[in-house]
Amino acid sequence: MGRQPFRVLGFDLSPFGGSLALALRSKDAVREVVGVGRSQRNMDDALRLGIIDRAETDLRAAMVGADVVLVATPVAQMPRVFTEIAAAIEPQTLVTDGGSTKQDVIAAARVAFGADIRQFVPGHPIAGTEQTGATAAFPELFRNRKVVLTPLPENSVAATAMVRAMWETTGATVMDMTAERHDAILAAVSHLPHLLAFGLVEELALRPDAADYFRFAAGGFRDFTRIASSSPEMWRDIALANRAFLLDELKRYRGQVERLEQLVGDADGDTLFRLFATARDARNDWLARQA
Amino acid sequence: MGRQPFRVLGFDLSPFGGSLALALRSKDAVREVVGVGRSQRNMDDALRLGIIDRAETDLRAAMVGADVVLVATPVAQMPRVFTEIAAAIEPQTLVTDGGSTKQDVIAAARVAFGADIRQFVPGHPIAGTEQTGATAAFPELFRNRKVVLTPLPENSVAATAMVRAMWETTGATVMDMTAERHDAILAAVSHLPHLLAFGLVEELALRPDAADYFRFAAGGFRDFTRIASSSPEMWRDIALANRAFLLDELKRYRGQVERLEQLVGDADGDTLFRLFATARDARNDWLARQA
Repeated sequence: MGRQPFRVLGFDLSPFGGSLALALRSKDAVREVVGVGRSQRNMDDALRLGIIDRAETDLRAAMVGADVVLVATPVAQMPRVFTEIAAAIEPQTLVTDGGSTKQDVIAAARVAFGADIRQFVPGHPIAGTEQTGATAAFPELFRNRKVVLTPLPENSVAATAMVRAMWETTGATVMDMTAERHDAILAAVSHLPHLLAFGLVEELALRPDAADYFRFAAGGFRDFTRIASSSPEMWRDIALANRAFLLDELKRYRGQVERLEQLVGDADGDTLFRLFATARDARNDWLARQA
Repeated sequence: MGRQPFRVLGFDLSPFGGSLALALRSKDAVREVVGVGRSQRNMDDALRLGIIDRAETDLRAAMVGADVVLVATPVAQMPRVFTEIAAAIEPQTLVTDGGSTKQDVIAAARVAFGADIRQFVPGHPIAGTEQTGATAAFPELFRNRKVVLTPLPENSVAATAMVRAMWETTGATVMDMTAERHDAILAAVSHLPHLLAFGLVEELALRPDAADYFRFAAGGFRDFTRIASSSPEMWRDIALANRAFLLDELKRYRGQVERLEQLVGDADGDTLFRLFATARDARNDWLARQA
């Protein structure tokens, strides 16, 4: 994809902007990385760790001569950031994002960019971590992971190819789909599990004898709730942004909990066994396909 | 705790019997380990890996001269195994178990052992793994983990102290509590999460377009569902054995899912943020205390 000045914007809350910069640097695929962020400490960390060449507080100054701008802020901040970027966008600039939801991000981008929407290629690298900040960035984050692009009718073939090439440089597999399908699938395999994990831990934490419960929680609990250590701000934004699909999933899952109650209440060991075995086999098949 | 012949009975489904044997061997705290199991292959593995000194198919023969008998079968098999052990128990023999539920195991033991119930000290090492078989055993499994004993009024101080000392040899912290409290706590922090993980994966697996969902499942999903790769047989037994407490927990959790639906439906970002932050803080405090 050649070497061009590449700007990472606002990776305060996520290590993925920094990881992309490190991955591109490791392949000598970028000339300059400029960081723009809310947190001075995070920008200082990014400079110290060699993730960025310089930090800018002024977005307009950072945009001058940029070929690719990655918006790595939480999705709720994107409307504001898009508006600022739209005011400084140059003809060669491509803008992409890493938002976990796509329909709302695209709607916000359309408002902000107007006719320049053709320069915005929406994306989502599916490589989660519950950690935050530049210090959690590492160049292999995207290797063998999937990056979804949800290109717009207005995007040129060249624009989409450029963003695709950037992600492929990191070792990721890039796949296209519609924003609606992306949001439906992610609601089930990512957004719902996050809410379920947060919900489990919160309910336990509010019990008067919570300490007794946590004392005997072990490895299964640790893994099941790992995603409940994720950013509350980021997940509030995702829950609101993908509300309709997430509500569908919560409703389905409530039905599944009711079914489990029924089976346990009826002491229906045969059906419980089949349900558990179906789950185990499906998960093991999935793991085998990942390997 | 001296060196005595120590018998591991039936660890077909769980690596914990083998791990106990390896831990005791590594401290030179056992003279002989005898394995009794349903699976010839598992017994062969255990011999090959130096976990046991000899394998017996005849339980009565294995029991001769035994000081400690560990029953490491799934809980549903314990009534039958206890009855066989009770027919061969010697005056010096102590029996303990590793069952994930305690009230039902104790009830079965009372039926089987009669007046010899004083020789049965119920226990539960809280060191889960979703793997099965002797090949998954390793001597450090219990280091810095908790082992719960739920001693009976009939147990002598010496009997309880002996079982406690055995587990402390593995590096575990041993804690006493009532069987009822144990089952209530484990229902919340272990049994419920297992059912929730099985339930999530099964529901996805039965969708006509399941492959699309699994294709975009990532690290968060992998950890959230790790326990859904556990033994369906073992978890069916636990679900039935701890039915009353598990039903309470499923009901509470259904209430929490309803609350999440309400908050997402109302787009109540402030309350969602607080719920997520409470969960994250509670989990991070818990992790810090574990370290």
